[in-house]
Amino acid sequence: MKISARNALKGKVVDIAKGQIVAKVKVDVGGQFVTSLVSVEAIDDLDLKVGDEVSAIIKSTEVMLAK
Amino acid sequence: MKISARNALKGKVVDIAKGQIVAKVKVDVGGQFVTSLVSVEAIDDLDLKVGDEVSAIIKSTEVMLAK
Amino acid sequence: MKISARNALKGKVVDIAKGQIVAKVKVDVGGQFVTSLVSVEAIDDLDLKVGDEVSAIIKSTEVMLAK
Amino acid sequence: MKISARNALKGKVVDIAKGQIVAKVKVDVGGQFVTSLVSVEAIDDLDLKVGDEVSAIIKSTEVMLAK
Amino acid sequence: MKISARNALKGKVVDIAKGQIVAKVKVDVGGQFVTSLVSVEAIDDLDLKVGDEVSAIIKSTEVMLAK
Amino acid sequence: MKISARNALKGKVVDIAKGQIVAKVKVDVGGQFVTSLVSVEAIDDLDLKVGDEVSAIIKSTEVMLAK
Repeated sequence: MKISARNALKGKVVDIAKGQIVAKVKVDVGGQFVTSLVSVEAIDDLDLKVGDEVSAIIKSTEVMLAK
Repeated sequence: MKISARNALKGKVVDIAKGQIVAKVKVDVGGQFVTSLVSVEAIDDLDLKVGDEVSAIIKSTEVMLAK
Repeated sequence: MKISARNALKGKVVDIAKGQIVAKVKVDVGGQFVTSLVSVEAIDDLDLKVGDEVSAIIKSTEVMLAK
Repeated sequence: MKISARNALKGKVVDIAKGQIVAKVKVDVGGQFVTSLVSVEAIDDLDLKVGDEVSAIIKSTEVMLAK
Repeated sequence: MKISARNALKGKVVDIAKGQIVAKVKVDVGGQFVTSLVSVEAIDDLDLKVGDEVSAIIKSTEVMLAK
Repeated sequence: MKISARNALKGKVVDIAKGQIVAKVKVDVGGQFVTSLVSVEAIDDLDLKVGDEVSAIIKSTEVMLAK
């Protein structure tokens, strides 16, 4: 399966904090950090754990630029 | 000014392709690449050019994870 | 690869309209239609054509409800 | 009122799970399922209940394609 | 029809610029301006013209805060 | 720092409700209200309090129009 999203940053999960519905996941992508808010359901469905190798997927329409 | 968006990946602009309304910008963030679709108006307003140091800003609700 | 996005609607591409940077794709998902705006680069990268079987992937934070 | 969002999938609410701020709603859209994360405030404002006929509204810029 | 999106800013269209696929619309919302990128298809479907009274609809997950 | 996001509505924070991971913030922008869902982490990082002057930042691709 190939996805249209242009951004797939490879990294490692360094922290997972679960609320009731939403979880916050921190991913180390080559020394910089990416924070993701996903559903707890997704965390459970992917069996996501600290240390897992993941890709942070981001649609290019969601990326702003600051200069 | 400090922004609530959790993600600010530092990088360098490597390519800008302008359409009529939307432009596509490629940013090298430490060896990985981020693609951004923003308005041509934003490119002009920031006077964005290849070689510029920028941050790719992404709200954490927009980041998916793949494993 | 498994993705955290909760929504993957299976369907068939029925129309592709390309601009310079952005393309519009119509997908028939079981009798209802989904419209997607993605980069032309993504269309080319996936070699997307009318008639292709695809999944429309949508992060659940992007889904509103109207009643 | 007519909205610019290109996607309005008609369906029926099959599950609602409320957290403190965010709720997760599952909608059956013709045999496939759509998951939505909205504020609990929105759930209360729409008086949304299991069994309600709703439309899942999605801006086309938020739809990715996987092949 | 009532929508879950928490934000509906009332205003008047002051400019429309059409590309091939995407259009940019400027809306005056009480002295401040909102810019929207929507599909040209949506502009045509709503028969949107300068001077029209509209609401700018924004899902609350899409709103960042800067201080 | 200048950001590509086209929308920055100036206002004042009138309410903050915190969940475990996500917080809801209401901002008065010239008599109309904007609701934002951000991470509790962002609230803490910005030391955001009721009464603060803030800008509600919204990427133009996230703004729909209703007529």
